[in-house]
Formats: sequence, structure tokens, C-alpha cells
Amino acid sequence: MSRSPETRHDSVRAVEWRGSYLRLLDQRRLPDDLVYVELSSADAVADAIADMVVRGAPAIGITAAWGVVLAAREADSGPARHRSAAVQTAIGRLAAARPTAVNLQWALARMHAGGEVADTLTLEATAERLQAKDLAANRRMGQLGAGLIRPGSAVLTHCNTGSLATGGFGTALGVVRAAWGDGRIRRVWVDETRPWLQGARLTAWELARDEIPASLIVDSAAAHLMSRGEVDWVIVGADRIAANGDVANKIGTYALAVAARHHGLRFMVVAPSSTIDPDTAVGAEIPIEERAGEELCAGFRRFRPHAVNPVFDLTPASLVDVLVTERGILQRPDGDGIVRLLGGPAPESVGGGSQLW
Amino acid sequence: MSRSPETRHDSVRAVEWRGSYLRLLDQRRLPDDLVYVELSSADAVADAIADMVVRGAPAIGITAAWGVVLAAREADSGPARHRSAAVQTAIGRLAAARPTAVNLQWALARMHAGGEVADTLTLEATAERLQAKDLAANRRMGQLGAGLIRPGSAVLTHCNTGSLATGGFGTALGVVRAAWGDGRIRRVWVDETRPWLQGARLTAWELARDEIPASLIVDSAAAHLMSRGEVDWVIVGADRIAANGDVANKIGTYALAVAARHHGLRFMVVAPSSTIDPDTAVGAEIPIEERAGEELCAGFRRFRPHAVNPVFDLTPASLVDVLVTERGILQRPDGDGIVRLLGGPAPESVGGGSQLW
Repeated sequence: MSRSPETRHDSVRAVEWRGSYLRLLDQRRLPDDLVYVELSSADAVADAIADMVVRGAPAIGITAAWGVVLAAREADSGPARHRSAAVQTAIGRLAAARPTAVNLQWALARMHAGGEVADTLTLEATAERLQAKDLAANRRMGQLGAGLIRPGSAVLTHCNTGSLATGGFGTALGVVRAAWGDGRIRRVWVDETRPWLQGARLTAWELARDEIPASLIVDSAAAHLMSRGEVDWVIVGADRIAANGDVANKIGTYALAVAARHHGLRFMVVAPSSTIDPDTAVGAEIPIEERAGEELCAGFRRFRPHAVNPVFDLTPASLVDVLVTERGILQRPDGDGIVRLLGGPAPESVGGGSQLW
Repeated sequence: MSRSPETRHDSVRAVEWRGSYLRLLDQRRLPDDLVYVELSSADAVADAIADMVVRGAPAIGITAAWGVVLAAREADSGPARHRSAAVQTAIGRLAAARPTAVNLQWALARMHAGGEVADTLTLEATAERLQAKDLAANRRMGQLGAGLIRPGSAVLTHCNTGSLATGGFGTALGVVRAAWGDGRIRRVWVDETRPWLQGARLTAWELARDEIPASLIVDSAAAHLMSRGEVDWVIVGADRIAANGDVANKIGTYALAVAARHHGLRFMVVAPSSTIDPDTAVGAEIPIEERAGEELCAGFRRFRPHAVNPVFDLTPASLVDVLVTERGILQRPDGDGIVRLLGGPAPESVGGGSQLW
């Protein structure tokens, strides 16, 4: 099958609006089973978010936006005077599905701007725009990030930051996708990403699906590969970036940054500019979530050792070589660079510059 | 239950001779089930080694030595003229059970010195001595290593180097055991050690069994804990040490050494001097075994991503702060230090010295 440059290596979609229903790829069943669920009500969407049929902050936000559209369509068939209250109730349910997901609240706020419930066609257009903008931002980041990668490079990524986690294409994995499409990459390494194995279950599957050859490794083998000259770039996403450029991301990111610096390799963080939180001065202010230790011993029937399970870690800006956003690239990110990035021109006109280009 | 200082925190034994049979702790069933198997024939011992009822190089060697004793006891009940051939056949079977295990061949050579099959009482005494010497060497290393650890320290270990892997007490885990017994340790971190989870399944169990509180983490969380001041020492074993002090050990060891150095923490390697191979000039000469990639995706039913599964990695001597052997301690190990260590006085008389003490 011949594909346009735009769609080559980019076939996976976690969230798809099908005109009258929402189709989600059930990520709990990956990689063994490729199962789609079709949702026709806002309640079903809220359940799917809560049950983690869909994961990845941008993908959750977009899914919730389509949940509001489904709520509006349902309300349209009832009495007009109840419509607004019905949709607002649905928004409340969707917001509570994953209460700590910032993107979820952000997307719902956009679907409910000014506290008014818009007409259904407007809501549909808004949801469509949210998803399209996310995809476009990811494609833009992919292009910017890929431009930094010298042909013949080997790259290593962590967790899942791909089409499955976003409106499509992905952030860090979008850069891998774009650079692969450009013929710049000779090898892709995927950390399995304990304890949830997002790398093994999701990223390895997503890349295989899109015909990008990749090799899975245990997380602790990354430094070994670096020592053998098998890695040129480490490319990761971000959950939150402080105003000074410190990065909170999936546990294991920091160990990669330390090892990359030790070996003189380059470390790239790829995230939309909305990930930067100007109100968080430094990374140390970001709380690091710890989850139940039992997640480390899921297969054990009786013996349950005490376990400590931090889900994220902090990578200081000093270990980040490049921050790629849809607004441009920041080499050696720091507070001044981030101010320039956020205050700079619109994405379309971001051009060359000493740090921001 | 009150225990002598010698036996406190040291109750686990993987291999025990019971006068007429060998009792092995079935390590495949840990941590869920505590099952011992009782073996009365050399063939059963060879099967147990091949099936990985027992693992850990020293433990395998000791088990094989007891297998020779069982072969001799069996042969004693047959015609005397067949005794030597029968025992030699058993030795061949035992040697082939795990063909790449150096300790296995080493132990069998000692049970078959000069190509002669000794009488059964002599063989029994030899096997007993092998096991006792391993235990004594481990206790000595424990004492030496513990002496380096300042009270109130937090230590992190990798894989399983404990009683389960040896004749008892352990190498790196022996240092943890001894330092805990001395009241020097405030916290023990155990890497789960993907892909086989020896840390989660064996080390965490062994420490719990011996009443040493420990916390399991995913391998990639170690650097995060270091950045928070939660680790003072990384303490690991070694599979092979080159003449220049480079260390081959379980995959993930090198990443820990890199992270320890980045954070200014200390990195200790604990291994009997027999682990040092004077014929291997530098670590780069040590072949790094790769195993099947499928080991990374054991739970996947259909999708099998390509995976690369190096089992060991190399830590350069420059990242090792201390090498602890039963012959003494080498600070900042290098080729000269190792020559002094191997050529030095017998273990009993190793005293103070600038590097070797």
C-alpha cells in the first residue's frame, strides 16, 4: 500500500470520532489483542477514561471533549429546557473520571467556555479542533526534533509518548516517527518502562504497527548500550516542566539523562508548550507521585515485599540538551530561554535564533 | 528466639547436606512457596542444576560437589571395579548440567583431583570443605565490607548475591547482612533486577526471611533515590573481574555505577578473589552473553516485539570505589592493586595498608 509522506508510519489512532460515536482503541488489551470499543454516550466515555481504556494526558483530554459532544447529542433528543443541565452533569462526570489529569480539566474547560453549553455542532467543531491542534502540534514538534538528528543516528525512548497517548503522531515518539520517515535513524531502542511496561506493551506495538523497526530492552540496559556507542540521542516526553526547565517525567527518565551526560550523548525532551508551568519555579516544587508498592509484585501470590514505587522523577534542566515544543526549540533550556519561548512569536513564525529556533 | 551473633540475620541456606541426601531450596518456587527438594542421586542433582532449582555460581558449584558424593555412595553399593567409572560418568553429567558455569567446573575439578576418584569419606570431606570455605570467605568479606560503612547509611543492592546464590551469607548481600547486624544501616534498597526479577523474587524474600527490613524498587528508580540523598552505598557482586579491575556483572550494574559516580556516592564490588581472572587483561575482553529477547515479554500471548537482552554489563574499574575480597579490600582497584591483592599474604594475615587492608 502506498502512502503519502504525511501518513507513512502514522496509522495508529487511539481516539477517533466516527460522526455519531467515539471509537477508542482499548489500550488495556494491547499488545495481545487489537480491540476497539465504540461509545455512544457520555457515561460510557467517562467509564472508559476511569477504566483506562485510554491513557496518556492529551488522549484523555480529547476523549473527554468527545464525551461532551455525545452528551449534547443525547440531550438534543430530550426537552430543550433540560439540555444545558444534562450536558453540565455529563461534564461533571467526565471531569471526575481521572481527577488528577490536568489535560482532562483543560479540555473540558474549552468545551464549556464561559460556563455556557454551546449548540451541538459548535461543540463538535471545538472537539474536532482540539484533536486537530494536538495532532498538528505533534507533527510540528516531530519536524523540529527530527531536524536535529543527524542521519545514521540511534535513538532511545522511554514509556509511551506516541499516537496512543495523544491525538496522534505523539510527542517524543513523534520525533522518532518523523526522523524515521526522514531516513535519519538507523536504530530505535525502546525501554520496557517498569513497572507498567508502557514501552513493551504500547510503544513497541505502536512502532511495529507503523513499520518502524525497534528493539525492546530492559530499562537498566540503556547505559550499557550507551557505553557501546549504540545510542546517539535519548528522546523523552514530559509530564510537567518547571519555569527553570526542570522536567518531571516517567520514572527512569532521570537515570537516562544522567547516563546520557556521562557518555556525552544528547538528551531531548519533547512536549507541547502547555506542559510548561510558569507557576512552578523549579522542579523541586513538583510533587512526585508514589503509587502502591504492590504494582511491582503483581505476579506474586503470597510474599509481598515492601516496595517503594515513585511514578515520576525529576531531570534538572542542566541535563537537558534540547527542549522541543510546538513553539520552537530551546537548546540548553533555562529560565530565560523558557520566558523567551513562551513570550515569543506564534508557532508559525518561529524562525532561527541563537537559542530559540 | 535469641540467636548468636553468627547466626542472626543468617538463617537461609540454599544447599544443605543432610548426611545421606542433599536438600535444595527450590528457587524457582520463590517467593510464593518455600519448597525443599531432597536429592539422593547424582542424576537428580544434575537435573536440579539444569532445571535451575539452584542458581548462583557458588551455589551451583557446591551442589555439584555434593552430587559427586551421592554418585560415590551409589557406586559403593555396586561392584568395586565399576566404582571409578560410575563416579566419572556422574561427574560428566554434572559438568554438562550448566556448561557455561565456571564455578561448576572448578568445584568438580576439586572433587576429582589428579583424575582419581577418592573414597567416599574423602569426597564428603572435600565437599564439606568447599562449602565451609565459601561460607567463611563470605563472612570475611561481610566483615571487611561492613567496616567501610558508616553507621546510618542507606545501601542499594542489585540482583541476588545472598545465601541463595552461595554456600551461605552471600557476597554483596553478605556485606549488607553484616553491616545490618552491626547496626550500620538505616535503609536497604533492593533493585527488582529485570528481566528475571532476582531482586524482587530472591533478595527481597531472603532479607525478609532474615528479618532485615528492605524496600524493593524498579531498577530505573535507583538514580531518582540517589538524587534525593536516599543512597550512600551501592553494593554489588561480580561474575568476573579483569586483571585491570573492570567488573562484569548482572545487567544494570553499570547504570548504577554511572549514577553513583554522578551523585558522588560510593560503589562497592564484593566477590571472592577467585572471581578475578588474571588472564583477562581488560573488561572489553569479557564476552557479554545475550539471551533470547522473549524473556522480556514472557506475559505476551501474541505480539512479540524484537528485543535485545544482554544479561551482563561491564563496569570499568574507574567507577569502582572499593573491591572487597576475602583476601582484603582494594580501594580504587587497578591492575597494580590487583597484582598486590592476588600476590599478597594469606587471608588470615591481611592487615592494614595504604590500599590493601
